[in-house]
Amino acid sequence: MENTVEQQNETAQVITSSQLLEHWQGHRRVTRRVIEAFPEKEFFTHSIGGMRPFSGLVSELLAIAVPGLQEIVSGKTSKFEEQMDHNNSKAKMLEWWDEATEQINELWAKIPVEKFQEVVKLFGQYEGTVQSQIFYFIDNEIHHRGQGYVYLRSLGMEPPFFYDRS
Amino acid sequence: MENTVEQQNETAQVITSSQLLEHWQGHRRVTRRVIEAFPEKEFFTHSIGGMRPFSGLVSELLAIAVPGLQEIVSGKTSKFEEQMDHNNSKAKMLEWWDEATEQINELWAKIPVEKFQEVVKLFGQYEGTVQSQIFYFIDNEIHHRGQGYVYLRSLGMEPPFFYDRS
Repeated sequence: MENTVEQQNETAQVITSSQLLEHWQGHRRVTRRVIEAFPEKEFFTHSIGGMRPFSGLVSELLAIAVPGLQEIVSGKTSKFEEQMDHNNSKAKMLEWWDEATEQINELWAKIPVEKFQEVVKLFGQYEGTVQSQIFYFIDNEIHHRGQGYVYLRSLGMEPPFFYDRS
Repeated sequence: MENTVEQQNETAQVITSSQLLEHWQGHRRVTRRVIEAFPEKEFFTHSIGGMRPFSGLVSELLAIAVPGLQEIVSGKTSKFEEQMDHNNSKAKMLEWWDEATEQINELWAKIPVEKFQEVVKLFGQYEGTVQSQIFYFIDNEIHHRGQGYVYLRSLGMEPPFFYDRS
């Protein structure tokens, strides 16, 4: 009977935990290509309408992903901290990006499927179910990356394909 | 025993079908506010780096959401068609947006939870699980709306809050 329950759970998932991880990492691969596409200088300086340069948006994404997952897994509150000592080096930020990729995989393995519907408060202020928090992380990344696409176009550069998540 | 299986399914969902619908409709409410925020003329004309004006992006979103769901529900292939007779009227597009909101709710009710893992081909060419198709609809909307935020900022206007999905 236990097998039946497990099979039912598997077949009746809207999206499984491993599909959601792959969905996020697929988006993160696109974001990585957007970072790579920027010229070094413009990555840290180019701006439209008073918005942050793309490096600032990427700092925010790095400050959310691993620290947010760490809070979800550990239950320990941390302060939101997006100031990073990147020394205006795109290579440094790509290195952090790749480290985060591994850490996300490791932390994800510690989230049992039941956890996604638990309510948690992150960074001492944002309250919601774990699934809603993780979708916020992903959606916020898509949102800011869409802004990066406009920055690249305004520099006369072709952004990576949105639909290619490989 | 049947109750136990049902309870297991409910508690073990990463995201339930009704949560995913609400997630999408929450994003659609933000997109509606972005449409409203644009001045009438700039909605149809303002562009950065050769990209489409926001009206063109919204036409694409309208051409995907209901037609895509209709294909998922009916299994019948249709042609992707984003040419719309909007006569450069923002009010007309907001009317279509609201009609789509209702149609999405009606079509969603016809998608049983088991369907999300079925593989379907949409618009005669895009193949993937139903869940991946629907996430593509949502992510594509977030992506293009993020571009709309830059358009608004470049016009000196404050976009709606990204985190407010009410």
